[in-house]
Amino acid sequence: MANPNWIGVDWGTSNLRVWGMSRDSTVLAQVNTDQGMNGLHAEDFEPILLNNIEEWLPGSGPVPVIVCGMAGAKGGWETAPYRAAPCLPLSAEESVAPRTADRRLAVRILPGISQTRPAHDVMRGEETQIAGFLSVNPGFDGIVCLPGTHTKWVHLSAGEIVSFRTFMTGELFGLLQRYSVLREILDRSNWDAAEFASSVETQISRPEALAARIFTARAESLISDLEPAKATGRLSGALIGAELAAARTYWLGRDVVLIGQARLVDAYARALAVVGQNPRPENAERMTILGLTAAFAMFRAKEFRP
Amino acid sequence: MANPNWIGVDWGTSNLRVWGMSRDSTVLAQVNTDQGMNGLHAEDFEPILLNNIEEWLPGSGPVPVIVCGMAGAKGGWETAPYRAAPCLPLSAEESVAPRTADRRLAVRILPGISQTRPAHDVMRGEETQIAGFLSVNPGFDGIVCLPGTHTKWVHLSAGEIVSFRTFMTGELFGLLQRYSVLREILDRSNWDAAEFASSVETQISRPEALAARIFTARAESLISDLEPAKATGRLSGALIGAELAAARTYWLGRDVVLIGQARLVDAYARALAVVGQNPRPENAERMTILGLTAAFAMFRAKEFRP
Repeated sequence: MANPNWIGVDWGTSNLRVWGMSRDSTVLAQVNTDQGMNGLHAEDFEPILLNNIEEWLPGSGPVPVIVCGMAGAKGGWETAPYRAAPCLPLSAEESVAPRTADRRLAVRILPGISQTRPAHDVMRGEETQIAGFLSVNPGFDGIVCLPGTHTKWVHLSAGEIVSFRTFMTGELFGLLQRYSVLREILDRSNWDAAEFASSVETQISRPEALAARIFTARAESLISDLEPAKATGRLSGALIGAELAAARTYWLGRDVVLIGQARLVDAYARALAVVGQNPRPENAERMTILGLTAAFAMFRAKEFRP
Repeated sequence: MANPNWIGVDWGTSNLRVWGMSRDSTVLAQVNTDQGMNGLHAEDFEPILLNNIEEWLPGSGPVPVIVCGMAGAKGGWETAPYRAAPCLPLSAEESVAPRTADRRLAVRILPGISQTRPAHDVMRGEETQIAGFLSVNPGFDGIVCLPGTHTKWVHLSAGEIVSFRTFMTGELFGLLQRYSVLREILDRSNWDAAEFASSVETQISRPEALAARIFTARAESLISDLEPAKATGRLSGALIGAELAAARTYWLGRDVVLIGQARLVDAYARALAVVGQNPRPENAERMTILGLTAAFAMFRAKEFRP
């Protein structure tokens, strides 16, 4: 393989993904590992990265390494302070450049974005996917929803992130599935799509009753042997339904784009269909690569001139 | 100590509590252990109980042992099938009598109560506390709220459990405190009462936004160093506030009695004060003992005649 012209990195809480990129920003090689930033110390990041890309590195000259995600959080590789919304999704000036022992690396970590109004909120990594989306949809005015552990609803206008809101929906689902009294009654590989849709609808009509609604799955399982796939559909539908009820001002009458893993994008698309929305799905990895490419272009104009 | 005339047992998921009772049902001795039914097999219950009460047992003649709680659940000592609400809280006929190897024991396990309308629901143990409450408040017509891992709101009328609803509020708080991204920002020993009250109020006014509201604590902690005691108050207030919004038909314009641990009863009383309610607190252990006493009296009339 030819040595990459630059390297893109998405360093999340649980995963590390690295792409070796050509001069015209096509992917030459990639690595996915579970070496997320969780549990790492600042001094661990450089050797872990080197270990994954050693064979890509040229003999001389620093190669640009553009990093998005949790590596820039407090307790990560080096803190890249949040930028305040409303703002453009990316900023080369406000990135940080951790010193590396290995001179073949020129690392830049992208900042996350924060907000204090209408409510305190933060994102790290999603801004890069948004930048990727905007790079191929430059005039987009509408809503991007990024389903995940912490799902984000983001209002985009004039190329800027106007405001956003985070829901811990995915994390709640994971906690309930792994640790709660519901753990024994759920099906981990299947879910009932009809039960999911009806649960979304029920939850939207009485969105406050989440903690009671999810217990009905436990009770119905004890009393009437509720099928595990239905229990999973009900739990997932209740959590996403409550989120849709709260995010109504985002999606009502707007164009909605979904960026995420296929399985989650599918669930959110089905839930949004219940309220008459027809969101447009986008591939999360593609958006990340496009966003890192847009970031590299911003840097190159300033400091990585050949 | 005199040998007890009968023995009361509250065998929950995490704890086992046993009381040695006199002929006139005062407590002669008591044992509290963490030998809850979680992780026990059916054959473990008798030896564990014996081990805790060996020195109380008479040389001859079976001693009545009245058991409430999860010991009667599927996977417990012996299944005591649910009785369907509306119904009286207790039934001697529908209890089960597991065979014991030791002839000095005459065990009766009380059934739980289920409901299929307006929603599927179950309780096990709370019905005994309710029976205890009714034994000293025979004409009570109103609402009993039993805060806990799975908080119950119960409508009582004419001595019967008319209907009830369970909220997983306590379990959600525990999961979020122990395992979630919020775990590092919470204060485990203190909470800010003003933040709690304001969070209850915010949540009641927008009850659907729970998964977003609780993330604001994480975001504000990252952006503005939110005090841990405030983060705890906000999380607790949001969860209980959402519950109050959903349980409005229970408490609005009704007499509300709170039965539970002092700390939880205090939190629910403060939350109910936000909506103008002045609930009456009752001690949970006292209600359990009164309920077991009422159950023993029902049995005695039938089968434990001296």
